[in-house]
Amino acid sequence: MAESKDKPEDSSTEAQIPKAVVSRLSLYLRELQHLVRDGHETTSSTQLGKLLGFTDAQVRKDLAYFGQFGYPGIGYRCSELIDAVKGILGTNQPWPLAIVGLGNLGRALLGYRGFQSQGFRIVAAFDVDASKVGKSVDGIPIFHLDEVQRVSREHNIRLAIIAVPGPAAQKVADALVAANIEGILNFAPVTLNLPKEVPLVGVDLAMELEQLSFAVVNQGAKE
Amino acid sequence: MAESKDKPEDSSTEAQIPKAVVSRLSLYLRELQHLVRDGHETTSSTQLGKLLGFTDAQVRKDLAYFGQFGYPGIGYRCSELIDAVKGILGTNQPWPLAIVGLGNLGRALLGYRGFQSQGFRIVAAFDVDASKVGKSVDGIPIFHLDEVQRVSREHNIRLAIIAVPGPAAQKVADALVAANIEGILNFAPVTLNLPKEVPLVGVDLAMELEQLSFAVVNQGAKE
Repeated sequence: MAESKDKPEDSSTEAQIPKAVVSRLSLYLRELQHLVRDGHETTSSTQLGKLLGFTDAQVRKDLAYFGQFGYPGIGYRCSELIDAVKGILGTNQPWPLAIVGLGNLGRALLGYRGFQSQGFRIVAAFDVDASKVGKSVDGIPIFHLDEVQRVSREHNIRLAIIAVPGPAAQKVADALVAANIEGILNFAPVTLNLPKEVPLVGVDLAMELEQLSFAVVNQGAKE
Repeated sequence: MAESKDKPEDSSTEAQIPKAVVSRLSLYLRELQHLVRDGHETTSSTQLGKLLGFTDAQVRKDLAYFGQFGYPGIGYRCSELIDAVKGILGTNQPWPLAIVGLGNLGRALLGYRGFQSQGFRIVAAFDVDASKVGKSVDGIPIFHLDEVQRVSREHNIRLAIIAVPGPAAQKVADALVAANIEGILNFAPVTLNLPKEVPLVGVDLAMELEQLSFAVVNQGAKE
């Protein structure tokens, strides 16, 4: 429970690491996992950069935030770098997840294979709809939101996904915080107020489409 | 059909605008829309920054990529800046969308309200499952993927969402490119190869969770 914010540790303090670098760590991890699957034992900043469309300098600079991972004349050992990146991202440990809201989006997320492959496993679902509570979907039991504190403690749940309609999201977030959930992924199209010590990542799928329309419009390829 | 890449225009060339700036434009747009809904007519870089946790300098620098939007002594006129940002993002025009794949994720995306509120309207769905083709979901007709070229032309569809399982995604992408789709949002957990002129935005939901686990682990708030 100790807050470490006021006494910075030896390692580089997280406050200085841009979010974009953390996102790129995920990309490096995926490419490293593909390389290992394809039988590669080593790689290089040039190869990783080429696979992702970055410069090799970018790759080296990003990784340098966290340590020294390459070997002269060899480059990176893939499985070693995978372990290191997972350690940095925290995914070298399992993260039992809860999901709140079992509408279409919630059910889709329950079946989303991309989570499990990176160590995130949904172990409990919550809803307030009496017709859903007590049942299970894809083997995941559905509890009433009122039980979130007990269930989270019993299943060691530390992260939760909010997939409820916008107007219900803040109340759900408050309940999750009260249940000592440590981080929240929010799909509801609203801005949530959370205590500073509970990290929040918002997913706004329209933003991704706006990036796409921006790219199409500014490319001027057609019209 | 004219490629404008080799003759840069008067306006700032898009190649110099970092992706992160485009993402932040979406965030500014959401906050501006909230401000207008709450009755505000003007705002400032300080207010926008405060709402989003950025510095006012960051807000001004981001907007300066695209022009001069503020008024001395007034700040930004909200609705004017909304129009400007929509113009930059390309969402001052409607974007009829197609979605391919009607599993849980596809159905969830069909019902996702966040798209429509930003001008993105799904007008056609595609699948290869004979039990789905010819029916409709939430009023959206479901066509066979083989019809994508004809349907896209008839409905003026320029962007498409891929929500099929990973192994099917590249084939779907190829069919979309052949149907002159101009941009693709990919939810399948695979890397797609597309022609350079077709922008691709990939959505990897595990990445968002990795950002969260990184934040939790590096905050050291518990453990």
